[in-house]
Amino acid sequence: MAIKVHGIPLSTATMRVVSCLIEKDLDFEFVFVDMANEEHKKHPFLSLNPFAQVPAFEDGDLELFESRAITQYIAHTYASNGIQLILQDPKKMAIMSIWMEVEGQKFEPLASKLTWELVIKPMIGMGSTDDAIVKEKEEQLSKVLDIYETQLTKSKYLGGDSFTLVDLHHIPNIYHLMNTKAKALFDSRPRVSAWCADILARPAWVKGLEKLQK
Amino acid sequence: MAIKVHGIPLSTATMRVVSCLIEKDLDFEFVFVDMANEEHKKHPFLSLNPFAQVPAFEDGDLELFESRAITQYIAHTYASNGIQLILQDPKKMAIMSIWMEVEGQKFEPLASKLTWELVIKPMIGMGSTDDAIVKEKEEQLSKVLDIYETQLTKSKYLGGDSFTLVDLHHIPNIYHLMNTKAKALFDSRPRVSAWCADILARPAWVKGLEKLQK
Repeated sequence: MAIKVHGIPLSTATMRVVSCLIEKDLDFEFVFVDMANEEHKKHPFLSLNPFAQVPAFEDGDLELFESRAITQYIAHTYASNGIQLILQDPKKMAIMSIWMEVEGQKFEPLASKLTWELVIKPMIGMGSTDDAIVKEKEEQLSKVLDIYETQLTKSKYLGGDSFTLVDLHHIPNIYHLMNTKAKALFDSRPRVSAWCADILARPAWVKGLEKLQK
Repeated sequence: MAIKVHGIPLSTATMRVVSCLIEKDLDFEFVFVDMANEEHKKHPFLSLNPFAQVPAFEDGDLELFESRAITQYIAHTYASNGIQLILQDPKKMAIMSIWMEVEGQKFEPLASKLTWELVIKPMIGMGSTDDAIVKEKEEQLSKVLDIYETQLTKSKYLGGDSFTLVDLHHIPNIYHLMNTKAKALFDSRPRVSAWCADILARPAWVKGLEKLQK
């Protein structure tokens, strides 16, 4: 059954799913969504995702959206493919779940706003960076990264001792922010800095970039 | 092994966990956190949750935070207790995961801001309601609830045909908003309105309120 990802390379949520599929050695078809012409706001795309956002995902007759729901489906359904991205021990899985939620609830709202202001907004001509928003979000993200720095003294990766969905979910925003002044937030914390270097160097991530951005 | 929930009754995240434990027929000790005296910003609470937020959770030697990570741990670990709050079929579970993410990423940021402005902020003397924020968030929440109204034509509950964590995660914010002018957003959509009435009448939710708010 064919796997399809509908999205655009610039979308962090799209790249999250693509990177997951490559970590799991799964073949897929990438379907470019012409967002400039608002294809995502029209049918048939809206039947795949009523929120009119990329990515949407198909695996045979199963249709999904929300990038983190998709990666969890992939990690569970294709557990024996590629590397394990979830943990088998229930207590370790519970700890991992904490940091999945931290990424979604604490990191993403700040990092995605910074990615928007510093990278995407100027790139697509939606206006110039709002420095006041950047300052506010950088200050808030600093506090989150202080906690990450401490957590990374307890385990090599953020959700445990091996690379999991927790780390994978962070990569796309960190990738974009590493080309901005927000890089300093990550570089100034030794363990966070080493963790970023590690996860950005994942062959699956690099391969995903090459596949979509060529 | 004793289960402990550290929190306050007014906290939607605390009530999310309490309601889940009662749905699963699990005994627990409720530990009140004196947030007025900033107990949550000091040790030992910070060792339970470095983000200084309630709830924190203990099950024997396992310590967790982030309410949705806690409910998922409870639902998986105590699968044979009380009612099933997750789905066994992998494809149905994937659909359920979409709506778990929608709650966390789309509903919660808007509903919790409205709960803050309309209920909590005036109640704890942090100032008066900001009407401009309320207007903006109500408009955004309306669009989310339009999609809920459509989804509830496809299944009785938001994540499938039975009550699951998806619905449970929504209850605390909806409970608060039903005593505000934002109630109209829910009442004006017939299926959303019926769904709200159904989930707010859950005996576990009512019992949780009685247990904590007496």
